[in-house]
Amino acid sequence: MKIQLINPNTSMAMTDKMAVAARQVAFAGTQILAVQSATGPASIESANDEALALPGMLAQIQAGEAAGVDAHVIACFGDPGLRAAREIATAPVIGIAEAAMQMACLVASSFSVVTTLARTVPTAQRLLVDYGMTTRCRKVRATGIAVLELEAQSDGLLRQRIGDECRLALRDDGVGAIVLGCAGMADLCTELTRELGVPVIDGVTAAIKLAEALHGLGLRTSKRGDYAAPGPKRYAGVMAQFAPVA
Amino acid sequence: MKIQLINPNTSMAMTDKMAVAARQVAFAGTQILAVQSATGPASIESANDEALALPGMLAQIQAGEAAGVDAHVIACFGDPGLRAAREIATAPVIGIAEAAMQMACLVASSFSVVTTLARTVPTAQRLLVDYGMTTRCRKVRATGIAVLELEAQSDGLLRQRIGDECRLALRDDGVGAIVLGCAGMADLCTELTRELGVPVIDGVTAAIKLAEALHGLGLRTSKRGDYAAPGPKRYAGVMAQFAPVA
Amino acid sequence: MKIQLINPNTSMAMTDKMAVAARQVAFAGTQILAVQSATGPASIESANDEALALPGMLAQIQAGEAAGVDAHVIACFGDPGLRAAREIATAPVIGIAEAAMQMACLVASSFSVVTTLARTVPTAQRLLVDYGMTTRCRKVRATGIAVLELEAQSDGLLRQRIGDECRLALRDDGVGAIVLGCAGMADLCTELTRELGVPVIDGVTAAIKLAEALHGLGLRTSKRGDYAAPGPKRYAGVMAQFAPVA
Amino acid sequence: MKIQLINPNTSMAMTDKMAVAARQVAFAGTQILAVQSATGPASIESANDEALALPGMLAQIQAGEAAGVDAHVIACFGDPGLRAAREIATAPVIGIAEAAMQMACLVASSFSVVTTLARTVPTAQRLLVDYGMTTRCRKVRATGIAVLELEAQSDGLLRQRIGDECRLALRDDGVGAIVLGCAGMADLCTELTRELGVPVIDGVTAAIKLAEALHGLGLRTSKRGDYAAPGPKRYAGVMAQFAPVA
Amino acid sequence: MKIQLINPNTSMAMTDKMAVAARQVAFAGTQILAVQSATGPASIESANDEALALPGMLAQIQAGEAAGVDAHVIACFGDPGLRAAREIATAPVIGIAEAAMQMACLVASSFSVVTTLARTVPTAQRLLVDYGMTTRCRKVRATGIAVLELEAQSDGLLRQRIGDECRLALRDDGVGAIVLGCAGMADLCTELTRELGVPVIDGVTAAIKLAEALHGLGLRTSKRGDYAAPGPKRYAGVMAQFAPVA
Amino acid sequence: MKIQLINPNTSMAMTDKMAVAARQVAFAGTQILAVQSATGPASIESANDEALALPGMLAQIQAGEAAGVDAHVIACFGDPGLRAAREIATAPVIGIAEAAMQMACLVASSFSVVTTLARTVPTAQRLLVDYGMTTRCRKVRATGIAVLELEAQSDGLLRQRIGDECRLALRDDGVGAIVLGCAGMADLCTELTRELGVPVIDGVTAAIKLAEALHGLGLRTSKRGDYAAPGPKRYAGVMAQFAPVA
Repeated sequence: MKIQLINPNTSMAMTDKMAVAARQVAFAGTQILAVQSATGPASIESANDEALALPGMLAQIQAGEAAGVDAHVIACFGDPGLRAAREIATAPVIGIAEAAMQMACLVASSFSVVTTLARTVPTAQRLLVDYGMTTRCRKVRATGIAVLELEAQSDGLLRQRIGDECRLALRDDGVGAIVLGCAGMADLCTELTRELGVPVIDGVTAAIKLAEALHGLGLRTSKRGDYAAPGPKRYAGVMAQFAPVA
Repeated sequence: MKIQLINPNTSMAMTDKMAVAARQVAFAGTQILAVQSATGPASIESANDEALALPGMLAQIQAGEAAGVDAHVIACFGDPGLRAAREIATAPVIGIAEAAMQMACLVASSFSVVTTLARTVPTAQRLLVDYGMTTRCRKVRATGIAVLELEAQSDGLLRQRIGDECRLALRDDGVGAIVLGCAGMADLCTELTRELGVPVIDGVTAAIKLAEALHGLGLRTSKRGDYAAPGPKRYAGVMAQFAPVA
Repeated sequence: MKIQLINPNTSMAMTDKMAVAARQVAFAGTQILAVQSATGPASIESANDEALALPGMLAQIQAGEAAGVDAHVIACFGDPGLRAAREIATAPVIGIAEAAMQMACLVASSFSVVTTLARTVPTAQRLLVDYGMTTRCRKVRATGIAVLELEAQSDGLLRQRIGDECRLALRDDGVGAIVLGCAGMADLCTELTRELGVPVIDGVTAAIKLAEALHGLGLRTSKRGDYAAPGPKRYAGVMAQFAPVA
Repeated sequence: MKIQLINPNTSMAMTDKMAVAARQVAFAGTQILAVQSATGPASIESANDEALALPGMLAQIQAGEAAGVDAHVIACFGDPGLRAAREIATAPVIGIAEAAMQMACLVASSFSVVTTLARTVPTAQRLLVDYGMTTRCRKVRATGIAVLELEAQSDGLLRQRIGDECRLALRDDGVGAIVLGCAGMADLCTELTRELGVPVIDGVTAAIKLAEALHGLGLRTSKRGDYAAPGPKRYAGVMAQFAPVA
Repeated sequence: MKIQLINPNTSMAMTDKMAVAARQVAFAGTQILAVQSATGPASIESANDEALALPGMLAQIQAGEAAGVDAHVIACFGDPGLRAAREIATAPVIGIAEAAMQMACLVASSFSVVTTLARTVPTAQRLLVDYGMTTRCRKVRATGIAVLELEAQSDGLLRQRIGDECRLALRDDGVGAIVLGCAGMADLCTELTRELGVPVIDGVTAAIKLAEALHGLGLRTSKRGDYAAPGPKRYAGVMAQFAPVA
Repeated sequence: MKIQLINPNTSMAMTDKMAVAARQVAFAGTQILAVQSATGPASIESANDEALALPGMLAQIQAGEAAGVDAHVIACFGDPGLRAAREIATAPVIGIAEAAMQMACLVASSFSVVTTLARTVPTAQRLLVDYGMTTRCRKVRATGIAVLELEAQSDGLLRQRIGDECRLALRDDGVGAIVLGCAGMADLCTELTRELGVPVIDGVTAAIKLAEALHGLGLRTSKRGDYAAPGPKRYAGVMAQFAPVA
């Protein structure tokens, strides 16, 4: 099967890092097509960044549909544009936050999220409400690390800070698992699991495995109800290029 | 004071209709600057439409801020991009759904929403959760009328259908007020109030009065917490033109 | 328009202070009729105080209706008797807690309440549930100041304590705005906003502007559903004088 | 032990009916002191009625405390003034709605309430939220019978209507028990239980047994936290006679 | 009346302690039949313990029904198997957690639970959700004491630790009452009430009084809806002996 | 990998049917070990059945752990004993209800459950609360078919009834997907998907794919927090054989 792994920001280094993580967990027969948005913010750390990342991300969904991929993964922990993407896709679309939280619920009765900047915390909290995770997630913890700082994966100091925050979560929140709150942390997952002795869950790899699972079950996005395909419509100006294709 | 009334779709006829309604309720000293998005969908009826309406809408917020307006109103019942707009604005930003629901709570203990197509109902329901209105709003009722059909304000048949749905709401939902669920219904408000004998609330006019109220109190968007201005950031490609200004 | 500003306790000095604050924000054409209860507790700081304040407050609603006022404001942060008042009024009735919280939601994504004695905190928390504000309000903070201590507005020490609690709220609760939890703090609002650099919202002034907004929209209390006028009924004994008028 | 059974309206016939029901279930050693408010509405069917019933009811609480009763029962299904009463009492105070719902939860996994006029339904629904009963109670059903119509207990037609509504509840709501939503229905409880073959619970008798239970456990109203006694305070005007006693 | 007090673990010393507490509060005419499970764990401190305690506990329910008892009390704070027991009983079945929390709500507006090991806290928290007590209970506090350590009731050190945790609850949680979170603490209730000056509620004694109350009201488990008796069914293997009797 | 598929009832025919469905979706390298409880009820349709199914089910978890399986699936839609099983397992344990609901959320914004007897509906509803699915699941619909009737998979009439209920769900509940609420419906999934044109999700196959996904991610049950292994403990009587192994 072909999974399109979409980095909804425009930073290629981050795409590459995700792709490595994704391929490590994918089955032999799974092809990972890693792409990033052609236009939009270099990283997504505010509601404004998210809003302006959507056209580029949705264009990739369209392209992937046209190319006949079997699933899409939106690889940003805010799951930006997930509903819009599901409307215009027939293949399943998986957000990495929803994926990570679902997996966490299967192996622990509660978890905390360790994420990047404090200003992304409210976005994560809104997702918790949306996904029915408010009682399963005990706390969303910011490390104060910007998304693009994570690109430099060799940086031991950042790893240390993330590890420290995970340890605080285990000590103070009473949780049994950690969810990493940024696609840029995908490479830390295995190492942290070993260090901490509890499940540490990264959304990118979780989403890849869920995409394979859905494919194996023959499940595709429902075209009935909220995710029904929108009808044709005039789009004016520069956004016309991103308009849904008939 | 100057209020920028933003129609986040690109249909000028709808902008004109809203502007008329807005000016009817504004104080003498209030100047209504009615604008619409320069780019994006002709109407907003799906998550995809909403996603692709955001750049055009946020560009108007930026322009209004540069022009020194005292408040912004986002005139689409889904309150699209409200959080993003508040991040990049220092003037207050008011969504018409939040405005209408607040007003309804002051004059009735419960209300129903009468809106356009069935597929917009889930969007309204998500707003109810966001705004803490799940117990105040008894039902969101679709009339099956598309947003652009409402442009032709003289159409008596559509008015009839909307009126009928309001009557059903009063009879079956046990509510004391009606909230109109589309900016394109702004012109029907006074007439329906008279017909139905209960408060019928339109978000466009409600938002104008709330903008005046906030202005009178000297209240502007908090730049602390979730609505803090996002820092500068590289935006690639065609979206660069919509990037937040420093 | 005429707004009846009702102080539901019997302390005239507090009425005067509110009236000053109210007139500072009212439009030129708005007349503020400031009254207090003729009978009941000198301040409202317990459920018992609130219960025994209701006859005096409702008598003022009746008197205001008879005098043809265009709106009523109940100026105590517990919004005492709001539902009863709306039943017997046709003009809108606005509680200052609901008003302040609504305004806070338009300019900040979360707020904390800074109030008087610790024993009033549960009352505020019940209002949060009633008004759907449990996720918007992060904390209700008591200063330990009794309502009547606030009368002496020149007291720098009390202002200091209130300011300090606001600063704690900003530092520890992660909020973007402060709601003042007592009508007796109305005079501190402007000064605190300047000091703290975030919106500080007082319910008295917020309610006045909402009353003007409702009036501008032609909205009055719905007489259908929960706020329908109660039918005539025998009232025995000393309460007979407070019975609803036909 | 002495239980003061307070009818918070002024209708003696209703007091007498409750007293009969109460004495039928009370233990031999339990003395039922049945009283009604000396002042206030003849029946409680609106928020306004409730507000103006409070002084009379609270005066009875004070009198009962002075007389050294061991428990108070507030015999109106809206549990009016329950928090205020608990503040000024040291003996336990039990509302009949809370009592009936607690008992229902012990013998059925869900119940419906069958009550009087439609306009009392919202009051019952607010109690459900307060008491954490929103998932246990499936529906609050109005019969359209006014409280004072129930006084004439021999009226077979009213009994029939109440029985019919109970049968609808069993058939359509999927519940295992019925809670009677008015103190004036106390006399129908046994008969309906027999007729319907499910537990039918009346709050007056439920509250009497809970009062005996609390007494047997030596439990009295906590004077710490929300129910702490309010301090002394000036009360002006006619309400002065209802002011809390030191 | 005859109340079967079931200790769902197999520790006779604990049964004896409960029986003493139960008899101290029971009316003269109430006979307490104290039994424990014939098979299962010596104490219940995990979901696994609870699962494997159910057959033994349900066998006692069956035996009690056969013997014609008037009520059953399940004396473990997790209320294990309460729904299953109610299905197979016609007499009322009362869990001590539900009983204690109901009583607490009648004498305090909020309470904290003081319990045994930290690993039992989540079980208590699930009960809070089930029973609608999430806003009434402020905190579930573990003392780190194992259930069987409580058997030795003379141990002053354990009492001290429990008392200390209660004091922390009063100081830090703002509550007006304490609920003891283990049947093995039944003997501490009176002493702690005296020491702390607030209601301290033990579930065993609370349940006994509720059983008497239900009996006095003639209320028995509804056999309609969720608690309807399960039909006959084949049970294979060693569990056949625990199968429901026709 | 080896997945132990546990039928927690004792009906071998049902085990065989599940095994067929499971093997159809499993990867080539996945070995399905299908077992059923050696002791307990022939089908699980009441809380009592569930309680008495637990020892047999947990014994299979123990046996599977001893045999070194890589994951356990509990194949009954009530997810009986899931928490207990996770305590005593180190391999992941997946309940089919949680699995099916998670999958449904990835391909539809809302779903309804179509299940067996009406008396199992409340169990499903409790799971919805537990799993945070109350807003995603619109309705749990009973077909009135007993679990063991489903064994005879060739029965066209039963299929018809299930299909009809699914069609009602699509027409009346506004959902985009159907979740089958019984392991015994596993064989109907593909056919119904084709017939209805929306995703129809069976928990058995969903759980198999989630087990593979967790295995691929190296995630195992957290032994910290709520799922920590219970310590050793005396178990008396016939249940001793089911006691947790050290």
